[in-house]
Amino acid sequence: MEKPFVVGIDIGGNNTVFGIVDARGTILMNDSIKTKSYPDIEEYVSVLSERIEALVDQVGGSEKIRGIGIGAPNGNYFTGSIEFAPNLPWGKENIPLAKMISDKLNIPSALTNDANAAAIGEMTYGAARGMKDFIMITLGTGVGSGIVVGGNLVYGHDGFAGELGHVIVRRINGRLCGCGRTGCLETYTSATGVARTAREFLEIKKEDSLLRRMNPETITSKEVYEAAMEGDKMAIEIFEMTGHILGEAFADFIAFSSPEAIILFGGLSYAGELIMNPIQEAMDKNVLKVFSGKTKLILSQLKEADAAVLGASSLGWEAK
Amino acid sequence: MEKPFVVGIDIGGNNTVFGIVDARGTILMNDSIKTKSYPDIEEYVSVLSERIEALVDQVGGSEKIRGIGIGAPNGNYFTGSIEFAPNLPWGKENIPLAKMISDKLNIPSALTNDANAAAIGEMTYGAARGMKDFIMITLGTGVGSGIVVGGNLVYGHDGFAGELGHVIVRRINGRLCGCGRTGCLETYTSATGVARTAREFLEIKKEDSLLRRMNPETITSKEVYEAAMEGDKMAIEIFEMTGHILGEAFADFIAFSSPEAIILFGGLSYAGELIMNPIQEAMDKNVLKVFSGKTKLILSQLKEADAAVLGASSLGWEAK
Repeated sequence: MEKPFVVGIDIGGNNTVFGIVDARGTILMNDSIKTKSYPDIEEYVSVLSERIEALVDQVGGSEKIRGIGIGAPNGNYFTGSIEFAPNLPWGKENIPLAKMISDKLNIPSALTNDANAAAIGEMTYGAARGMKDFIMITLGTGVGSGIVVGGNLVYGHDGFAGELGHVIVRRINGRLCGCGRTGCLETYTSATGVARTAREFLEIKKEDSLLRRMNPETITSKEVYEAAMEGDKMAIEIFEMTGHILGEAFADFIAFSSPEAIILFGGLSYAGELIMNPIQEAMDKNVLKVFSGKTKLILSQLKEADAAVLGASSLGWEAK
Repeated sequence: MEKPFVVGIDIGGNNTVFGIVDARGTILMNDSIKTKSYPDIEEYVSVLSERIEALVDQVGGSEKIRGIGIGAPNGNYFTGSIEFAPNLPWGKENIPLAKMISDKLNIPSALTNDANAAAIGEMTYGAARGMKDFIMITLGTGVGSGIVVGGNLVYGHDGFAGELGHVIVRRINGRLCGCGRTGCLETYTSATGVARTAREFLEIKKEDSLLRRMNPETITSKEVYEAAMEGDKMAIEIFEMTGHILGEAFADFIAFSSPEAIILFGGLSYAGELIMNPIQEAMDKNVLKVFSGKTKLILSQLKEADAAVLGASSLGWEAK
């Protein structure tokens, strides 16, 4: 193969990680810079490009690189821009990042949001190989999604489709979301949502729990997980409630696109059966009969440490 | 054009209507048979095929026909079969209707469910010409949907995607649905849902209303519409509640596929501003900010009498 590699860049609020990836999903080399250290976008792009060039040179130069894929919050595939991402230093502007990077490196680049990149990564290198219809759900500090229909990512008419973390799951007394509305899925089922549930349970319920040893103000989903693994009843119930809300939402997602699988990635998905069993239970109970038992619930097959770069890189194969 | 026409067949519980259609969406001739008169599927297919042949002969024979499109409840595009449609006489079986029809007439046939056919019809001849991302919502005795993403209908991995009438909109004390679950969108926003709301309002509310002159057991959405047109406050509130529930649901659909438009067809959509204004209001209020003001809410441009045959016929252009 003349151009056997792609570059993947994952842009987060703290770090920007990037690497050279081959067609089998092996990361040949990687590196990172601190996103926050570059409040000026021109400087950020210069430094990032230089560091990428250093890696590219080690694999034989840019003639070995098919393309560059970029995953970034609020990344728009159609425009190649990051459009108003509040967590990034230059996120108040509209940044045509794909063009800026490809101008610097003279390699075609494509950009999308991180959850879409995860979905394409899973299809290219992971659990969704060979699948044409699936939904990727990323359970991190927020809840993201990438939807694949007929083998193609769903971008919608504006490039921003697939915001399933912001589907409303509680219309009455729903939790306030960062988006300004109430009752969004991510207010219950993100890592921070689990911590909120823990605070609620500690206040409402009377029973004793390992969680009472912790400061409710700072309790984390990891602490809830550890308590649940020790058999703590309240902690287990927190995962059950979280899983049930996810499973109910998944039943609605299935009514929309009837995917072959829903694939979970990140944070909470590592809680294993604690979260998977209640999700499966609620999916089975709530799904429309015609879809019953048809949609698999599975975990991502990408290693957490590699997934962001792999997901982003997968876009590079088709960058133009 | 060598083969300038298609045949459209719409199969309903009472009637099967069919016609010859040209590329501009003109129905050149049409006919119908009573579905219920043919409890034997072989006889049904024979009679239907003969009657279609009679029309086809009048336009120059089967060499003028590009293909046959069929819209039917529970029609599966992938298999070409009607799979367990309780409202049809032979609906307890799995009927490979597309193959049966094309074997009889020696013309390629394709089949899908009626709401999907409506969506393809709208894209081929109606309000969605030139759109690549839209959602068609059919508001009849039930609520159906056809979803188009990137110019293609969303069939899902099993051929049954797009059951948006069965998304859960009320998780607590939801209305019992024909599907066996509770709180489905169609229990509130179908024609029968509107009648149910009227019965509820008449029982709960104290105020006088034109609706009190009707028998609550048999009240119809049409009667509610007529009362609303006369300015009846309760009837207007019934449409407001119905529209708000639709608009809230549409905000979630937008988070999924970010369509350029949501297109309404059938029954309730003819209530005009009475239903469109509250839908638009609730959509605007509930949609995630990134999608604000981007998705148009419009009415189907297909005439009700023609839409079923046109929608089905549009599948015929690509039948193989």
